[in-house]
Amino acid sequence: MANIKSGQIAALEKQYRIGLINSLVGYKSLNLLGTVSEGGATNLCIVSSAFHLGANPPLVGMVMRPEREHNDTLRNIRTTGQYTLNNVLPDWYKQAHQTSASYPSGVSEFDCCGFTEQYVPGFLAPFVEQSTVRIGLKLREMVPVELNGTTIVIGEIVEILADDSVIGKDGTIDHVKAETMTVAGLDTYFVPHLVGRLAYAKPGTEPKEVTLPN
Amino acid sequence: MANIKSGQIAALEKQYRIGLINSLVGYKSLNLLGTVSEGGATNLCIVSSAFHLGANPPLVGMVMRPEREHNDTLRNIRTTGQYTLNNVLPDWYKQAHQTSASYPSGVSEFDCCGFTEQYVPGFLAPFVEQSTVRIGLKLREMVPVELNGTTIVIGEIVEILADDSVIGKDGTIDHVKAETMTVAGLDTYFVPHLVGRLAYAKPGTEPKEVTLPN
Repeated sequence: MANIKSGQIAALEKQYRIGLINSLVGYKSLNLLGTVSEGGATNLCIVSSAFHLGANPPLVGMVMRPEREHNDTLRNIRTTGQYTLNNVLPDWYKQAHQTSASYPSGVSEFDCCGFTEQYVPGFLAPFVEQSTVRIGLKLREMVPVELNGTTIVIGEIVEILADDSVIGKDGTIDHVKAETMTVAGLDTYFVPHLVGRLAYAKPGTEPKEVTLPN
Repeated sequence: MANIKSGQIAALEKQYRIGLINSLVGYKSLNLLGTVSEGGATNLCIVSSAFHLGANPPLVGMVMRPEREHNDTLRNIRTTGQYTLNNVLPDWYKQAHQTSASYPSGVSEFDCCGFTEQYVPGFLAPFVEQSTVRIGLKLREMVPVELNGTTIVIGEIVEILADDSVIGKDGTIDHVKAETMTVAGLDTYFVPHLVGRLAYAKPGTEPKEVTLPN
């Protein structure tokens, strides 16, 4: 059993520490983040930092690092107030990973990584046509995290664009049918298999599996 | 193709909306959150809101809802400044789900859901012995989100407690070997299967799979 303590973590070789720390919380949500500049130049990058923040209002949080490659994206979100998150499928996850390469500013990752822009009336930011679950967000708040210079971007879901077949009768997205992938650490991609869906837990009763009509 | 817009989202039936919005971002990290009160009463609850915030310093964020059942946990984190996150395994994921039941204050979910407390010298908060990847965190910041009354709790990883066999030679946790689960929406549990690990992406080169010694 390894027990690595604070001082030892700080002393770890940089790439080892990044790999370790990034992978500790477990599997992460995986999305392509689509934005557009004021001048109409689109931008797409893979993100594993989106998290559910609340259902009413429908809010999603996302961590953006301060580095150069994200500047276009952050600037686009700031200036247009809009962005999209689109799920990643096994058929083209390598192309999705490729959007993390440092392309020159002005080059659209839609073009160079082989994705098709999709739009809905009244919303500026581009969705990914190849995805099966897509959400459009309106910027609500940027929270600077002084501890490490990142920014937590909080957006409200204002558009949901999904194949009818992946939305269950109770509203829940069927991510198996949607072929949504997940990621652990920086670069390791997975497809989850269903183990079980459990009923609302109450004290004094056994946890029960449920099956819902879909 | 469904296109659900802002006004329609707000008008959805409450449980349908919660199910839909909760599941939109995809798979989420899944952990048991362990805390202890000043008086020594332990508390354990399942959380799907932990997210990687940065590797240097090693930071993890977590969303806490304002509702009653989390008050013990939030108070414990505030008063002791410490908490743990522990991964969830298929052999006992139903017990982990059961920690979400509203047990009376003072009842430890370790006891009533069948978990064993594990401690390391110099750290107050309880780890879950049944887990294979466990982290101990020191509270660094509480960020109130006024948009919905939640709190983003930011902690620094000061303890890593994991089976040696699940830490790869490059530092990355092998979550397949660790048997870590993931969750989508509120209540649907999954075990991921590896699709591929990809090399650092560079413009002009094809995305390549890598195999690392483990």
